[in-house]
Amino acid sequence: MENDLLLRALRREPVPRPPVWLMRQAGRYLPQYRALRERVDFMTLLRTPELAVEVTLQPVEAVGVDAAIIFCDILVIPDAMGMALSVEEGTGPRLANPIRSPGDVSRLRPFQPEVSLGAELAAVRMAAEALGGQLPLIGFAGGPWTLASYMIEGGGTRDFRRVKRFLAEQPAAAHHLLGLLAEAAGDWLVAQADAGANVVQLFESWGGALGPRDFSSFVLPYLARAVAAPAARGVPVIVFAPGAGWALEAIAETTGAAALGIDSATAPENARRRLAPYAVTLQGNLDPGWLYAPPATVRERTREMVAAFGPRAYIANLGHGVFRDTPVGHVRAFVEAVREGVGYE
Amino acid sequence: MENDLLLRALRREPVPRPPVWLMRQAGRYLPQYRALRERVDFMTLLRTPELAVEVTLQPVEAVGVDAAIIFCDILVIPDAMGMALSVEEGTGPRLANPIRSPGDVSRLRPFQPEVSLGAELAAVRMAAEALGGQLPLIGFAGGPWTLASYMIEGGGTRDFRRVKRFLAEQPAAAHHLLGLLAEAAGDWLVAQADAGANVVQLFESWGGALGPRDFSSFVLPYLARAVAAPAARGVPVIVFAPGAGWALEAIAETTGAAALGIDSATAPENARRRLAPYAVTLQGNLDPGWLYAPPATVRERTREMVAAFGPRAYIANLGHGVFRDTPVGHVRAFVEAVREGVGYE
Repeated sequence: MENDLLLRALRREPVPRPPVWLMRQAGRYLPQYRALRERVDFMTLLRTPELAVEVTLQPVEAVGVDAAIIFCDILVIPDAMGMALSVEEGTGPRLANPIRSPGDVSRLRPFQPEVSLGAELAAVRMAAEALGGQLPLIGFAGGPWTLASYMIEGGGTRDFRRVKRFLAEQPAAAHHLLGLLAEAAGDWLVAQADAGANVVQLFESWGGALGPRDFSSFVLPYLARAVAAPAARGVPVIVFAPGAGWALEAIAETTGAAALGIDSATAPENARRRLAPYAVTLQGNLDPGWLYAPPATVRERTREMVAAFGPRAYIANLGHGVFRDTPVGHVRAFVEAVREGVGYE
Repeated sequence: MENDLLLRALRREPVPRPPVWLMRQAGRYLPQYRALRERVDFMTLLRTPELAVEVTLQPVEAVGVDAAIIFCDILVIPDAMGMALSVEEGTGPRLANPIRSPGDVSRLRPFQPEVSLGAELAAVRMAAEALGGQLPLIGFAGGPWTLASYMIEGGGTRDFRRVKRFLAEQPAAAHHLLGLLAEAAGDWLVAQADAGANVVQLFESWGGALGPRDFSSFVLPYLARAVAAPAARGVPVIVFAPGAGWALEAIAETTGAAALGIDSATAPENARRRLAPYAVTLQGNLDPGWLYAPPATVRERTREMVAAFGPRAYIANLGHGVFRDTPVGHVRAFVEAVREGVGYE
């Protein structure tokens, strides 16, 4: 690997500067992405390997990140299990026929990525080839709890009313569903690694919706199972559970992930101190809102972030996906400021 | 006051059992509320004192809470400042002509509750009279940051993209707006207290959207100013900033609030331990999702919550508003289990 900063940071080896990538780096803030989307809708993009690869590689050239992340969607798992995914402009993703009863869970199709996600896997293979050992490729999956939430709510939600009702009324079916999704997420990460992904990330995006007791019951054990499959193959796994900053120790302890994503609500020093007992790399965490500030301010905030995380076991990133209307020049200022490696030798 | 449990708990005095009320207790889960809303839309209800009082009193009879909270909306402040509020079924509240520039901030009207919120104040007066010293009446306001977010986004949001852009691009105008809203929220709480509210709560509902540094800059000082006005009159203030459990010590320290709302993501024992140095009452925090469980489970979870908070300086409540489709009998089970006063003498 020509630029192996990400892999070395994940192994907690010394690096001359931190690796940097951005959540949602392959997306709307890039004019070349928007130009492509003028011609092609989201689902077509997702299912056309040549186009998915094109979008995956765009930020490598445009902003100079140290890793590519495959263009895909966390909801390909429910889609492959028989719940048709659709993405309408403005309203966000929808899953057809949301789960409302234990019977709906038992009607789900077994998850077979080779059968149902051939195009998505082809994109991973082609992106890895196109990168040609220059940069690592990141694969990803949704966390079991986040997938279950989408499958029960039928889409995004602010209050998690339906999924919480399901947990309270049908705990056995909920645990069964979470078990299926833990297997599926693990299998999907392994399939992507087999196709050429060097690193994988689990997005447990709705981790903050549950309190500590429910998190221990409905999130942690399934997250651990999803991590275990790729980890057993030696593939480094990054776990990101935004909104659940209070659970960082438990996630490190239970999953044994190589790295944890840190959201913007958790101060870098706080995360470092609490995670000191664990051999874990930290990733994050500038609030993407600060990329709207003038580039000089972006640079200052970024330097402060890098210094606060300290010069080891660190991957520079945002605390949330980059916003769609972020000026590209500001994203470059972020990447350039990381490359200065403040505090590194 | 016939039932002064809430006032005594706010003064940290011994009580035979904790007082109990529920956020959104005057709302959709009650058949009598839904029946009224069949005939009357939300805005009419808000602005017709007789109806607002009727709805305010419904849960006192129906579920046996220890306090009434005035039926109102946090967005009456921006409405009174010239941004017309509308509430459509299903889409949530909207504010007309969202703030997009410093000029929009300077065009806001001065907040004069006696002029613009006469109907809402009349409802407070009439509700206090109707309660006739039986139970305390709670008034409320939105926190400055939460109001600013709504005013810049124009409604609810999941990513806070526009308000974060405003903070980053127009920090001076943002601070000016937050200052206006801190004054307005303080004035509105005082006006409600003058009209008969015995206790007031500040809902800083979007407190979790910012990280520690931005929270210290854009949330805390304005929250403190909003608390100061009613506190100076001896009115007990409850501050609730869900999603910002990590900030509890800072909120207690900076605002000097009589009580802090605890969200469901923060374990009761954790909140107690961290807030031990402060003379502050705690309020919360069962996840409203557990009210969907069978009543026996609701009772068990509620008893565990009461025991975990311990028998002093405690107000039983949920960690979030009660969901609209919660069975009324389950809400009663919650209230009844609190009344057992597990751990109280």
